[in-house]
Amino acid sequence: MFDYKLLSALAAVVEQAGFERAAQVLGLSQSAVSQRIKLLEARVGQPVLVRAAPPSPTEIGRRLLNHVQQVRLLERDLQGQVPALDEEGQPERLRIALNADSLATWWAQAVGAFCVANHLLLDLVVEDQTVGLKRMRAGEVAACLCASERPVAGARSVLLGAMRYRALATPGFMARHFPGGVDVHSLARSPGLVFGPDDLLQHRYLAALGVEGGFEHHLCPSSEGFLRMCEAGLGWGLVPELQVREQLARGQLVELIADRPVDVPLYWHHWRNGGQLLGRLTEHLARSAAHWLVPLA
Amino acid sequence: MFDYKLLSALAAVVEQAGFERAAQVLGLSQSAVSQRIKLLEARVGQPVLVRAAPPSPTEIGRRLLNHVQQVRLLERDLQGQVPALDEEGQPERLRIALNADSLATWWAQAVGAFCVANHLLLDLVVEDQTVGLKRMRAGEVAACLCASERPVAGARSVLLGAMRYRALATPGFMARHFPGGVDVHSLARSPGLVFGPDDLLQHRYLAALGVEGGFEHHLCPSSEGFLRMCEAGLGWGLVPELQVREQLARGQLVELIADRPVDVPLYWHHWRNGGQLLGRLTEHLARSAAHWLVPLA
Repeated sequence: MFDYKLLSALAAVVEQAGFERAAQVLGLSQSAVSQRIKLLEARVGQPVLVRAAPPSPTEIGRRLLNHVQQVRLLERDLQGQVPALDEEGQPERLRIALNADSLATWWAQAVGAFCVANHLLLDLVVEDQTVGLKRMRAGEVAACLCASERPVAGARSVLLGAMRYRALATPGFMARHFPGGVDVHSLARSPGLVFGPDDLLQHRYLAALGVEGGFEHHLCPSSEGFLRMCEAGLGWGLVPELQVREQLARGQLVELIADRPVDVPLYWHHWRNGGQLLGRLTEHLARSAAHWLVPLA
Repeated sequence: MFDYKLLSALAAVVEQAGFERAAQVLGLSQSAVSQRIKLLEARVGQPVLVRAAPPSPTEIGRRLLNHVQQVRLLERDLQGQVPALDEEGQPERLRIALNADSLATWWAQAVGAFCVANHLLLDLVVEDQTVGLKRMRAGEVAACLCASERPVAGARSVLLGAMRYRALATPGFMARHFPGGVDVHSLARSPGLVFGPDDLLQHRYLAALGVEGGFEHHLCPSSEGFLRMCEAGLGWGLVPELQVREQLARGQLVELIADRPVDVPLYWHHWRNGGQLLGRLTEHLARSAAHWLVPLA
């Protein structure tokens, strides 16, 4: 078996963002914590922490941390069956990768009550789907919410529904760039908004309308920032409908082409051996996500 | 001089997110674009592109891209003086690193009209200040908005003002965790929200109130997601006042301790030799940011 005294020291340093706080939480001296980390590094043969303020885990450190989380989840299951083992309701942590738009819109409402009821703390990581799934494969996250269906080895995926996007711009932008209506030529010449180099939603929207070649665009890797830039008239872009109900109702944003939504599926990937808590979170999401997502056509 | 035919090919592939679109934009065959990239790689002695869909620049590729942007900015200045050189008002790109909270709140409103008037496209990168400044030093971004004053070599920094944060939670959260009032003991036991391992705002807020040691918290590296989690009652956290005016007015969120804001300074770092457009953007920000930021005490 691993030495969990050493692993707990690593987890405490990262979770408490420093050796001093970690020592306080563990009830040890700072040098004792430091020694445990060094011993751990001697065992694994490489650094587990980047000594910065605050310290951050190296890649191997992240894997060890995730292992600690997995073990804690399994311990938690056992504590449910053997209540005497329970250490006064310690919170559990779950590391989850998800797409920025879900986090900016429905995620917190969907999991809020579940987390409070189960004393669950979330370590969220915003990643596009390729990276998110790679992190799952490497065991760095316990679950991943993304548009790709194919599960990695050891995991299952379940379709939660689809997020509906609308291609939007301000009325001022429409008047400036589409005075004669939205057509292939005016679309090709109007600045767009793109989340990042992996975001092809806008490219696909244009391609489906017959617009060939590139288009000028701003890059804005923030869900909220993307919407703000759209509202400021900097460009048109595909925005989650959930995020713009008020702006649409007030007429601050309008659709480029009426009633032409783009639906992006969302799959919940989760470890098969992730413990009961992850299992129940999965059931909870499968049951409740339909409230915010649309059925996949 | 560098061979700008090769560098333009690299820029086109990245900006157009593919060889095919890049070829269309450049008016070349796809294999010609491919050859230019290979020639460029032979010259620099290492890959400049990661061949994925879409292709992304390697580290050296990013530096070359940024150099192209710099040269384009300088060309643009010259075109202003020699209008005949102007290639039918080609848009300019500027790569800027900034903090997530600015992007989620005031940034787009502050720069929107400027970008439209100057046909300026933004490549935004969300980074915490350490990484943002490192990217400036490496020449990967032309400007950086962050809380640190000290400029990197070759750059200047100017104080734009401070962003005001409030420590907030829902009334339900307050009733659950602070039934007898907010004090050192109840604060230490209440779950908080933390943006990421580099975010020490909450830690400092607690330390100033005399709360020692760590505190349990969710990690949520998204400005909008952070607010959503706060609204869903998952934890308390420091949120930009700009982002929550409505929620405060409606009583959906309340301050943990009345009228105890935290002000975080924002400095605009910019290349000294960044060209006139960057210079004018700097002047514009220095003039207008006070509309959203508060004076630094």
